[in-house]
Amino acid sequence: MTDDKKSGTPKDQHYARLRRAHRDQKAGAPGQPSGFRPRPQTPPGEAPSDGLVRLYGLHTVRAALDNPRRKIARMLVTRNAAERLGLSDLSGFPFSTDLVEPKEIDRITGSDAVHQGVLLEARPLTPKPLEALGDTRLVVVLDQVTDPHNVGAIIRSAVAFDAGALVTTSRHSPTESGVLAKSASGALEHIDMIEVRNLSDALGKLHDAGFQTIGLDSEGPAEMETAFSGERIALVLGAEGKGLRQKTRETVSALVRLDMPGAIHSLNVSNAAAVAMYAARKYLK
Amino acid sequence: MTDDKKSGTPKDQHYARLRRAHRDQKAGAPGQPSGFRPRPQTPPGEAPSDGLVRLYGLHTVRAALDNPRRKIARMLVTRNAAERLGLSDLSGFPFSTDLVEPKEIDRITGSDAVHQGVLLEARPLTPKPLEALGDTRLVVVLDQVTDPHNVGAIIRSAVAFDAGALVTTSRHSPTESGVLAKSASGALEHIDMIEVRNLSDALGKLHDAGFQTIGLDSEGPAEMETAFSGERIALVLGAEGKGLRQKTRETVSALVRLDMPGAIHSLNVSNAAAVAMYAARKYLK
Repeated sequence: MTDDKKSGTPKDQHYARLRRAHRDQKAGAPGQPSGFRPRPQTPPGEAPSDGLVRLYGLHTVRAALDNPRRKIARMLVTRNAAERLGLSDLSGFPFSTDLVEPKEIDRITGSDAVHQGVLLEARPLTPKPLEALGDTRLVVVLDQVTDPHNVGAIIRSAVAFDAGALVTTSRHSPTESGVLAKSASGALEHIDMIEVRNLSDALGKLHDAGFQTIGLDSEGPAEMETAFSGERIALVLGAEGKGLRQKTRETVSALVRLDMPGAIHSLNVSNAAAVAMYAARKYLK
Repeated sequence: MTDDKKSGTPKDQHYARLRRAHRDQKAGAPGQPSGFRPRPQTPPGEAPSDGLVRLYGLHTVRAALDNPRRKIARMLVTRNAAERLGLSDLSGFPFSTDLVEPKEIDRITGSDAVHQGVLLEARPLTPKPLEALGDTRLVVVLDQVTDPHNVGAIIRSAVAFDAGALVTTSRHSPTESGVLAKSASGALEHIDMIEVRNLSDALGKLHDAGFQTIGLDSEGPAEMETAFSGERIALVLGAEGKGLRQKTRETVSALVRLDMPGAIHSLNVSNAAAVAMYAARKYLK
């Protein structure tokens, strides 16, 4: 994109002026001092129709555009974000694209979302059945973890540590959302999401497929690294506070704790997942 | 608290009725169907006066109440949360306490904050100078990481892995806030926060004190675990996207990467910090 500067700079300035003027007009209540004005807060707009999800942020959108499985309905993008994504020609996409002001995206996502000037509306990815699990040696299983920030971060770490799938239950499972996708920072497009009805049955099938299932529990009798065995590892994590359900605790091959010498013996669930994946990868190597 | 049930149940029912009535009154617009009504959204109230911070959530408040260094100005607590915290007598505290409805806390924190029925207004903890660092063998240094969810989770992991301090710069450093404290889940009260003016100078002083300073960088030339040496480790992490500043990269003893075999080669910063602390603790043991 050698013409970035030529085409960008004067118009960028124009857009920046427009944006400032618009912002000042909205924020400047009569009698307000003319110095610093906080950015006006925009609440999120209506949910998208037809079961679409909204994906935003540069990494997230880049990965979605590169994913042939992702069915995109439309894109809103600012001139600046289009340049950062290397999209010189918006007319070439098989979905509608609009060059917009940042505020138009604010109005849809809310101004708290770090959309970085780009938004997709797209079909959620279809979860796969457990039978679709390939020959991966590492998977992560979530027992009713739903917080989208945590699940997104876990997906990101799972892709980084080359876990082949994230297994969740069809009930009390994370739903694909803008927050989850943004926390996953593009990784959502790189992992197989597997949904099962009954987690204990799924753990049984994982055992049949040669997996050792390792349940993380702050009171677990064994230290995690001493418990690894076999050729395939499934790490099983529960929600913060609740932990693993009783049936899950009874079904896993081993209940293990992470060695924590400090005053607190629990981690944020995405941090615990990252540590467990790191250790499992070292064991499997 | 053997009288929990006796004193709690009838009044709890009374409060629950009051709360439902109040909620229905607020949410029930004329003509709205009488079935499911979404919880009305309450935006956060004004910031606290006098530089106070707001701490909420059961773990966070429990830890603050147990911390003699924490100067508390007032507490708002629901009957239910008071019971869960084991506070049978609210009159014994050297600060004002109010038994309130959950909605009153919503109005202060906003209804998105998971306050679990308890809120403190308190003085922020005073950061210490680097000279206050004790004989700890593990510290975490943040180079302009400010996201409060990430910093809170890092503090929680730092306490779990018994890191002796979190070192930050006085500019571009995390400010103590309700979100940060909630993400730290009580751990904020258990760690020394150390603030320095110049990070490179501070790294030099850490070297003088026998620390090996390990900068995490996705392009680092060495794999982390092969780089550890000596008796004391300082893990240095930069903000997502930006990473470590150039001067920091030039000053640390070693730039290292985490071994990530997957399609993405970066982690959420709190996940990276947790993995690094886990590995450092194993090395130091």
